[in-house]
Amino acid sequence: MHTFTDPDLWRKLSAEALGTAFLLIGVVGSGIMAETLSNGSIALALLANAIATGCILYVIITVLGPISGAHFNPAVTLAFYLRKEISRNAAAGFALMQISGAIAGVWLTHLIFELPVFQLSSTVRTGVSQWISEGIATFGLLFVVFGGLRSKPEAVPTLVALYITGAYWFTSSTSFANPAVTIARGLSDTFAGIAPEGVPAFILVQLVTVVLAMPLFAKLFSK
Amino acid sequence: MHTFTDPDLWRKLSAEALGTAFLLIGVVGSGIMAETLSNGSIALALLANAIATGCILYVIITVLGPISGAHFNPAVTLAFYLRKEISRNAAAGFALMQISGAIAGVWLTHLIFELPVFQLSSTVRTGVSQWISEGIATFGLLFVVFGGLRSKPEAVPTLVALYITGAYWFTSSTSFANPAVTIARGLSDTFAGIAPEGVPAFILVQLVTVVLAMPLFAKLFSK
Amino acid sequence: MHTFTDPDLWRKLSAEALGTAFLLIGVVGSGIMAETLSNGSIALALLANAIATGCILYVIITVLGPISGAHFNPAVTLAFYLRKEISRNAAAGFALMQISGAIAGVWLTHLIFELPVFQLSSTVRTGVSQWISEGIATFGLLFVVFGGLRSKPEAVPTLVALYITGAYWFTSSTSFANPAVTIARGLSDTFAGIAPEGVPAFILVQLVTVVLAMPLFAKLFSK
Amino acid sequence: MHTFTDPDLWRKLSAEALGTAFLLIGVVGSGIMAETLSNGSIALALLANAIATGCILYVIITVLGPISGAHFNPAVTLAFYLRKEISRNAAAGFALMQISGAIAGVWLTHLIFELPVFQLSSTVRTGVSQWISEGIATFGLLFVVFGGLRSKPEAVPTLVALYITGAYWFTSSTSFANPAVTIARGLSDTFAGIAPEGVPAFILVQLVTVVLAMPLFAKLFSK
Repeated sequence: MHTFTDPDLWRKLSAEALGTAFLLIGVVGSGIMAETLSNGSIALALLANAIATGCILYVIITVLGPISGAHFNPAVTLAFYLRKEISRNAAAGFALMQISGAIAGVWLTHLIFELPVFQLSSTVRTGVSQWISEGIATFGLLFVVFGGLRSKPEAVPTLVALYITGAYWFTSSTSFANPAVTIARGLSDTFAGIAPEGVPAFILVQLVTVVLAMPLFAKLFSK
Repeated sequence: MHTFTDPDLWRKLSAEALGTAFLLIGVVGSGIMAETLSNGSIALALLANAIATGCILYVIITVLGPISGAHFNPAVTLAFYLRKEISRNAAAGFALMQISGAIAGVWLTHLIFELPVFQLSSTVRTGVSQWISEGIATFGLLFVVFGGLRSKPEAVPTLVALYITGAYWFTSSTSFANPAVTIARGLSDTFAGIAPEGVPAFILVQLVTVVLAMPLFAKLFSK
Repeated sequence: MHTFTDPDLWRKLSAEALGTAFLLIGVVGSGIMAETLSNGSIALALLANAIATGCILYVIITVLGPISGAHFNPAVTLAFYLRKEISRNAAAGFALMQISGAIAGVWLTHLIFELPVFQLSSTVRTGVSQWISEGIATFGLLFVVFGGLRSKPEAVPTLVALYITGAYWFTSSTSFANPAVTIARGLSDTFAGIAPEGVPAFILVQLVTVVLAMPLFAKLFSK
Repeated sequence: MHTFTDPDLWRKLSAEALGTAFLLIGVVGSGIMAETLSNGSIALALLANAIATGCILYVIITVLGPISGAHFNPAVTLAFYLRKEISRNAAAGFALMQISGAIAGVWLTHLIFELPVFQLSSTVRTGVSQWISEGIATFGLLFVVFGGLRSKPEAVPTLVALYITGAYWFTSSTSFANPAVTIARGLSDTFAGIAPEGVPAFILVQLVTVVLAMPLFAKLFSK
């Protein structure tokens, strides 16, 4: 169990911030590069974006999993909290570091691509269909994380990476499924952006899905 | 052996329905997204469709394999029945859940992509070449499942995922190889659809291939 | 050691024929599909062709490796013969089955894509640069097979699959590296074809590379 | 520890030269092929280039890792030197072989693609944003190598391969992160090239990043 008195907490928090920063560099950076090079072929841009996102997810979960559990996602941290595997204070610390790392990652990405550091997205992502899509996307993420932990823990990095790579394509919202990622992508008016007015609803759906899905998975994945 | 008196049957049936629903969301959803974004480049659409399908196949087989065996396919369930690893009643239950889950997956996909929920495909897929293609596709799927179970059981999720990703390209029917998937794709007039009049012949070829191929594999893969 | 008196020889020979047939269905079939759908974008066609080839390679080597060693390639069989791991007669049997399986695979592919079964390729592939390219391609294949067997035998299917997927791109000949594949692709006037007059030189380079490279690898990969 | 008196030194040096040569054939060769075939779609060319590079990285690290440690990169060798896992002389030998192998790989690639063997790139890659990008790219490479060695050593080939495949997309410099690669790509006026005047700054950033990052990783990845 992760707690706030854990002498190793600083390392776990650093890992969560660093990993989430890398995740956003991966998502937003590849989106910028892809949109720039693809001459308007959105399918090609999304393909590169999805592959690069899968690559960085595998990397950060494999490397940092043994340190912090590799949540990189307040929704996943909430799920572990509901399972009583992380204390309330530690969970708050995790979420804070995830959000901070995510925002730092986006700003760093803007810097290396010579874009204005501070931006707000103008890509509208909203509506009931998108919200159901985010619900399914988050449900699927919890499915691979907690089902994977039950069935084949060493495959979790691959499971998350491949799930998200696929879900970029098979959900209409392109699967944010992560409040820290959603907030940070609100701060980038590039391929991966989401206009800030759409952010709260996405986050709400993500968190509600966690609360609804975890009891179901507790039953489905009980031993 | 899976039987109808197994106290864990409810869980196995749920796993089959849930997994097959995810499979169809993956296949049909990525097809819709790909066709929408690809500006008429069918090759690019099929590439995204094939990659997303491989991703979701790896995910559902890895996570649910230890629960239900991860058939998600009445043809595979029939093959296990012929091997006497599932009772007749349990096999019927599996098939029913697979078909129900598949259809639910398609309808849910239409919902999140803001399409009419109830559709019939108008994509004609028929003719002797397509049928031979489906026979080869199904033969290959049984080859990786039962050859994989013999040679490297832990690789079966990867084997099925990569086989289908490849077979989307190297068979002229794009490898349905699954009666539940075939029925459900009949209900979607999108990229992955198949016009209903073509469905019975595809299913017949798939099931006949199981009956013909299993004795051969029993010999080739005996220990 | 594989010998002609091995009571399991029939199974090994069947595995070599079946695996090589699948390999050619993968290579030639995905080439036809890719060329048909790609509207003249050869890069996109080669990408699909390379990915599908990698997929089928992983599959056939993983499934059939424990049965026959999964050569599917007279050049690889020659290399094992030079290492005295297969008798001369068994090696000849392997090569015969590989070539027969490869040709059957190409003809079957033509059938399911509604093309004339019997064809000769008109794609000229010849010249010193192409021959050096084939030498490097074959050298690299032996490098992953025999280096892989030394360093991480369970990774050989992945090594061969990824090597060939990459080598389609980084060699000017697109890496045939296999006499059975070269002969069979001579019989298909489609994306993956090679005009028959170029076949003998390709095969000669492939076999000479085996003879030259194996002593070097014996030294580099000695324990 | 690698030392100059190691009786196996010749083999390690050969492995470093051979592996780095293959790496450059992979990077430069796939860049040439991709640019030639992609009709001006740079996104498609970069996608093929990134995938082929990931393929060859997995291959050379898996096969040669148990022999030399599979650095193929003077920055990585410097990092191991700072960790006192390679002597100064052996490190110099490694770097020399990496650079020689890299250059040989580029020249061989030009040969098989029928291009002039000796070239200088005219692709300008310079400026503060690119340098920060190279710093991040190198930081990430060290992160996967040394974090991977701590968390899951057998995954290092996959980690490096996927990291670089992704980083081609999410860094503005397309992630050289390797002085030997940077020098050699200066000698190719093709897709992967870098104009020689940009080479020193890239190398400086790469090496400085090693010196700054290693103490941080020593702390983050301590046991």
